[in-house]
This record gives sequence, C-alpha cells and structure tokens, in this order.
Amino acid sequence: MNRTYTQDILKHENQEVTLMGWVDVRRDHGKLLFVDVRDRTGVAQVVFTAKEKELYDQANELRSEWVISVTGIVQKRPDNMKNPNIVTGEVELKALRIDILAKAKELPFEKDTEINLDTYLDNLPLTLRTPRSQALFKVQAEITRLYRDFLTQEGFVEFQAPKLIGEDAEGGANSFSVEYFGHMAHLAQSPQLYKQIMVGVFERVFAVGNVYRAEKHSTTRHINEYTSLDIEMGFIHDHRDVMKLETQLLAHILDCLQISSKKQVALIGATIPRVPQHIPEVKLRDAQAIIKKLHGVDCVNEPDLEPQHERWLCEYAAQEYGSDFIFITHFPVSKRPFYTYEDENDPGYTKGFDLLFRGVEITTGAQRIHGYDTLVASLEKKGLDPEKFRFYLQAFKYGMPPHGGFGMGLERLTAKLLGIENIKEATLFPRDINRIDNLLST
Amino acid sequence: MNRTYTQDILKHENQEVTLMGWVDVRRDHGKLLFVDVRDRTGVAQVVFTAKEKELYDQANELRSEWVISVTGIVQKRPDNMKNPNIVTGEVELKALRIDILAKAKELPFEKDTEINLDTYLDNLPLTLRTPRSQALFKVQAEITRLYRDFLTQEGFVEFQAPKLIGEDAEGGANSFSVEYFGHMAHLAQSPQLYKQIMVGVFERVFAVGNVYRAEKHSTTRHINEYTSLDIEMGFIHDHRDVMKLETQLLAHILDCLQISSKKQVALIGATIPRVPQHIPEVKLRDAQAIIKKLHGVDCVNEPDLEPQHERWLCEYAAQEYGSDFIFITHFPVSKRPFYTYEDENDPGYTKGFDLLFRGVEITTGAQRIHGYDTLVASLEKKGLDPEKFRFYLQAFKYGMPPHGGFGMGLERLTAKLLGIENIKEATLFPRDINRIDNLLST
Repeated sequence: MNRTYTQDILKHENQEVTLMGWVDVRRDHGKLLFVDVRDRTGVAQVVFTAKEKELYDQANELRSEWVISVTGIVQKRPDNMKNPNIVTGEVELKALRIDILAKAKELPFEKDTEINLDTYLDNLPLTLRTPRSQALFKVQAEITRLYRDFLTQEGFVEFQAPKLIGEDAEGGANSFSVEYFGHMAHLAQSPQLYKQIMVGVFERVFAVGNVYRAEKHSTTRHINEYTSLDIEMGFIHDHRDVMKLETQLLAHILDCLQISSKKQVALIGATIPRVPQHIPEVKLRDAQAIIKKLHGVDCVNEPDLEPQHERWLCEYAAQEYGSDFIFITHFPVSKRPFYTYEDENDPGYTKGFDLLFRGVEITTGAQRIHGYDTLVASLEKKGLDPEKFRFYLQAFKYGMPPHGGFGMGLERLTAKLLGIENIKEATLFPRDINRIDNLLST
Repeated sequence: MNRTYTQDILKHENQEVTLMGWVDVRRDHGKLLFVDVRDRTGVAQVVFTAKEKELYDQANELRSEWVISVTGIVQKRPDNMKNPNIVTGEVELKALRIDILAKAKELPFEKDTEINLDTYLDNLPLTLRTPRSQALFKVQAEITRLYRDFLTQEGFVEFQAPKLIGEDAEGGANSFSVEYFGHMAHLAQSPQLYKQIMVGVFERVFAVGNVYRAEKHSTTRHINEYTSLDIEMGFIHDHRDVMKLETQLLAHILDCLQISSKKQVALIGATIPRVPQHIPEVKLRDAQAIIKKLHGVDCVNEPDLEPQHERWLCEYAAQEYGSDFIFITHFPVSKRPFYTYEDENDPGYTKGFDLLFRGVEITTGAQRIHGYDTLVASLEKKGLDPEKFRFYLQAFKYGMPPHGGFGMGLERLTAKLLGIENIKEATLFPRDINRIDNLLST
C-alpha cells in the first residue's frame, strides 16, 4: 500500500489512494462525518457516511492528533462544498478503510485557542505542529540552506567549530562553565577564534552552530543558546569588503525566500524586504548626531547604542534611504573585542560594524587585527593574558592575511524577517534563565 | 589591483596579474630566486632575478608562511623547468613588485617533517595548512553538503537541536555537567529526543551538530565532542525503511565524492568504495554464529560486538558480498536505549541496527517506540522516571506515527572513508580526556 501525500490527490481523481497523517479537525454533519487529515504536504478532507456503519463508527472514535492511515477514492466535491482556502479544496477522499496508527490523549487546550507564551513553550511538542510554527521553522531551515549555498558558491568552506573550550576568550562573566574530567571548561560564546584560525587554512570559511551566552537578562531579543551564522574571509582591503559580502549574502537569501518560501511567508503574514544594492553606512558618532538632531536625545560620545537608538536609526534609514537595513561603523576600541582592527585614519575607533535591521542589531562584524605583535599588544591592553591565547596566537605567529568577518543570530534574523515579536517564538527549543524545555524549579 | 588566484594564471599568459597568498617554499638558485605562493586554489611559482637588485633583496627576506601580494607578468617556463606535478606548472610569474602583508616567525619545525600526533595537535593553526589536512577537511565539508542536499531533496527539514539539556535522557554517567544559573544542566549526548519530537512536526527531519560524550577512554575511535549527522523519519513500516534510506544516502554521498572531491581523495591516497544497492544485513545472533564458525571465537549471546568482531564481520561482508558495509540488526532490548522498538516477531530483540564500515560501527539506528503507553512502560522497565521525560513524552501523548532514524559521526565517517587511522586527525579541533586545544594541565 503506497502512501499518497495529500497535496498529490488532485492527480488521482476517481482513483484509490492511501493517505497517512494526523487527524487535524473532525466535523460532524449528521449523516456525514468529515475528517481533515494533515501530513507534511498539507491537508485533505476525508468523508465518511452513516450508511457505511462500521466505517462510520470507527471514524466516530477519531480525535484530534490521532495518527491514521486511510484508504479511499478521490472524488470531486459538490460545488457548494469546495474550499478555495486549501490546495486540495476541489476534492475529497471517500473513505473505504481506516487504520489507526496511534491514538492521542485529549489535548490540553482546543486548537486555535489563543495561548500565552509560557503555555506555548510548555507544550512545544504539540504547539510546534500548528501551521504557523511549521511555516516559521521551514523558513528558518531555508535561510540556513540559502546562507550555505551562497557562501559555498563564493568559495567559502564550511567547518565544524568546537563549542567546548578551555579558556574563555571573550571575557569570563558571560560564559557557562562545564565540568571536564576534573578541569573547568567553558561553552563557546562564538566560534570567533576558530574561524580566524581557519582563515589561515582555507582563506574563506563559514560555520553554523550553537553559541552560548550566560546573560541573565530576560528580554524579547535574547536567549542563552542560539544558532550563530558565522563567516570569516581573508585578503580583504578593509571592513567594507566584509560589509559588501554581507550585503550580497542577505540579498541572495531574501530574494530567494520571496520565491521558495512564498507560501510560508504569506501564511505568517510577513513581508520580506529587498536589500538595497548599497546599504547606507554611518559612523557611530554621526549616527548619534542624527539622533540628537531628529529626537533631541544627546547620546553623542556614548560607546554604544541603546535599543531605542537602534529603532530610531532604522526609522531614519527607511525614511532617508528607503532601506530596512543600516550599517553603523566605528565603534570605539574600548567597546569592541581585543581582536578588532583600529582604523589608522580614525584612531580610537574600530573598523567594526553592526548591521541594524527593522529596529535591532542582527550582526556584528569587523576587520580583525592580523599582525601578531599588534594582537599581543591589544590583548595586554585589554588586561588579557596572551599566554592563555597561545594556541590561537599561532595562527598569527605563522602568517595571517588581513581578514574580517561577522556573526549573525539565526533566530533573531528569522524573527525580524517574519515580524515575530519575541525571539523565543523563532527558536525551536529556547533556553532562558527560567527554562530548559520545562520551567526550572525555583 | 584585482587579485588573481594561482589556478587562473594559465589564462593570463604575458599579462600582468597580482597574486596574494602565503610563501609556501623559497628556493635559491644563485642569481635566481624562486618563491612558491600558495592560495586557496593552489600554488604558483614566482621568479626573482638578481639583476633587479631591489626586488631581489626584498624577496630574499621572505620566509615560509609570510603573507604577500606579488604583481608580475605571467610567462611560459623554459621547457626544462616545467613542473607536471602542479596545475600551474607550465608557467611562472616574473615579479615586478612585492608587498608584505604579514610576516611570520620561524616555524617550530621544517615543513614536510614527520611529526607525531601530539606535535601535530599542539600546532594545529599551522599544521592544518598542509595540503593533506586541507584536502581532508574539504572532503569533510563536502560530505556534510551532500548529506544535506540528499535529505532536502527527499523532503527532510533541517532543524537546530539544542545541546544544552535539563535532564540527561540517555543515562547520566556519560554526560558533561553545566552550571546553569544555579541549576545543573547537561550537554546533549545526541539530539535523539528532539528529533523524535520534530517527527511530530515535519515527519522527516535532519540535524547536523555537536554532541558530547564524557567517556574516559582514549582510543583512536573516540573523541569527547563530535559532529553528529542525524535523521529521523515518520510513517515507516519498520527499521528496514530507515536502512534503505541510509543506503541511498550513503550511495549519494560516496558517488558524488568520487567526482567533486576527486583531487582531494587522490591527494590523500584514499579509495572511495561503491555502496551496494542492498547492503547485506545479519541479525546479531547470526553474526556471532558466523564469527564462531570462521574464527572459532564463541561470542554467541554476548549483547554487543567487540571491535575485533566488527573487523571480522566487515571482512566477511567483503569476501562474501563484495561489500564494504554490513548491517547488524536485532541487538537485545537490554542493550539498547529505552526508545528502541522491540520486534514483535522476535521478542527480547530490537528493530535496531548498527552499520559497520571498514571494520568499525559508523551508525546506530532503529525503529523507535511510537505508542505513549509502551514508551512509558519502557522507561519504567529501564529504571528511568517518566516524570523527568514529561516534555518529550508530550510528542507521544498527542499522536506520533511509527518512525525511526539513525545517527552517524561525521569525523568517524571521514576517517574511515579516507583511510585515516586516528579519528583525531579527522577532527579539526579534537577534544579528549587530555586536551582542549592545549594539553590540559595535570
């Protein structure tokens, strides 16, 4: 008995097929009983008639989320029963036989009930099955695929970065500790040091993997384990080469999504923007001056942007340049990590950038220091011990080209692209200060 | 000044081009000085003549691994100087100008010196730059790409599995502990529970990600952090559907590698085998009987195979079936995890399998239990507390189809495919009981 997917039944009018899937909805209409069967391609209606008592009685037992295999004849629906909202709405399956593959217990809440975030998260194995969640995480998978495809085309090599690290390279406060055979190890906050090492091997590399931030804040923008899309590229002139690559990459992803994820994007009700050929770029100081001028708030000389500032700058980019994106460059050396390249033409400021999108920072990137002596000096200036970085420093000791890269949070990008308010909804199994799957006991 | 890659200089005879890369080798021939420049596409020879003193003196300073940009004219080599061993061996670059992008300190050992594994691992940022390491990890990236491509074609959706977990689902002894905001969390030993949950969402899913085993053994086959290629698929008839999918997947990967990674495979000196249309499959008991018959060793009724047994069975498969692969099925229920499906026609034994390849197990897979009550009973039988699995169990409470899947270690597969003796050489930055990048202090 070959399985037919629901989306294919239109091709099998008047033929016998077998569908397998979940009972999505059951509707009783007196002598007729309708069951919507859901599979990974969509939904199809199956009809049972009271005349065929045994089958009807069997169908009458079915409840939401039972898993069934149902064989029947595909037939045209009467005109008044057609459903233009689903792909298979012109036809239905007249059931001949039904097998129950798995029963389900009563659901904790009615389908389509509005539930709050905690209830949604408590019940993820069920709530991820909604059309909205399915669409969202299909788009996320597609973003990842397009990201890899573009970079592979551009000569980047993927590598698997370790997540278990010995020294915590970017400052200890925000790293999780791991008990490692009697030693203290850490979870990596980013693949930064490894991707730089790999520039020495392949020149252009990318990685997709989890990173960990032991930050205690509970916001709609932060989670403690997320997926980082990372790239690093050698032989650049300066940070602008990295920004250009990122612009092209985002254009590729967003343009392709318009086509490949059209259905999912429409279901979520999102609008995927176009990436301008040149994303506007503004130095931090100039951005702060713009904020002062437009909003009367004086943040000039602050070393970083507040969330409200990010929103204002995105509004500015949209109004001034018709762009949903804006690069902010030249954050001060004091605020950026030790490996960030200082602009020789603008001392005290870095060739580093943030990319803001729809009110929030989605990537941080920079040209990096490639000279060994400069890098050692920078470590010392930040109060870090070069000896602890001796493994990483070998890459520079033995010849490293000018290079740069960026990291981009997959979940945050997904959320902003699809207009999802809370990043936890754009993360399959979000970990936060209160929750790992279940709420942590207090 | 546009960069030309070394592999492209053949197209630019008698033209001026700029190469950028590392000094691979320098050869002094009296009045001539040759420098092989290495970039991500290969190697090209640059020639300097003593007549042009300033340039020659500059070149004379160059040492291994210095990073340079060199501009010159591409010219045919004299016949007696042609090098058939490299792609660009017909031509060389007559230098006009050289820029030093980064110097390098003296290397810790001569290139091409035989070094032991510890020295290799101590110096990875340098040793990964050898042609052999580059080839190996390019093949590894290609395996990952082919794995994803095949599965995406087959309707599988990629998902990002969490690595930070609350309860340790597969037995606590082998998991690493993480200090998580005052709670004890763990590093996942596999994405098993999450991929099963995701079958309820997408029916067919795959994941690529790090997994962690806190095992103390130090062998050539084990590392403590590795990359797991995982799949899980719903609506199967039994474990054989999973084995069939795996056979097709491996055939796709290996057939494509023959073409796309030909150069790298040749450089390593490996032979990529063909995957037979049907990989031979033998029940564990029958495999043990074969061992007894062929080698006189009685391991019948042992619950698992020893490494020597795996090697013998692979020899058997090669001799009897001309196959580098063999499936061993029906391990006893007692030896397999709680979620493994017991064969109703062979009580006490599971619909689980191992795939052996060139003497070693490369995947473990099975049909899984999909009935909620059966699964709860199985947990209890294994002495596990269903309450601790309540998040996961929701997937089964609310209707789960028959399903199964497998996990495959990327580094082990790479090692066996390429004839690498020690898995640590097929892992970019291997973590073991003694080492995280550097040796752990004792």
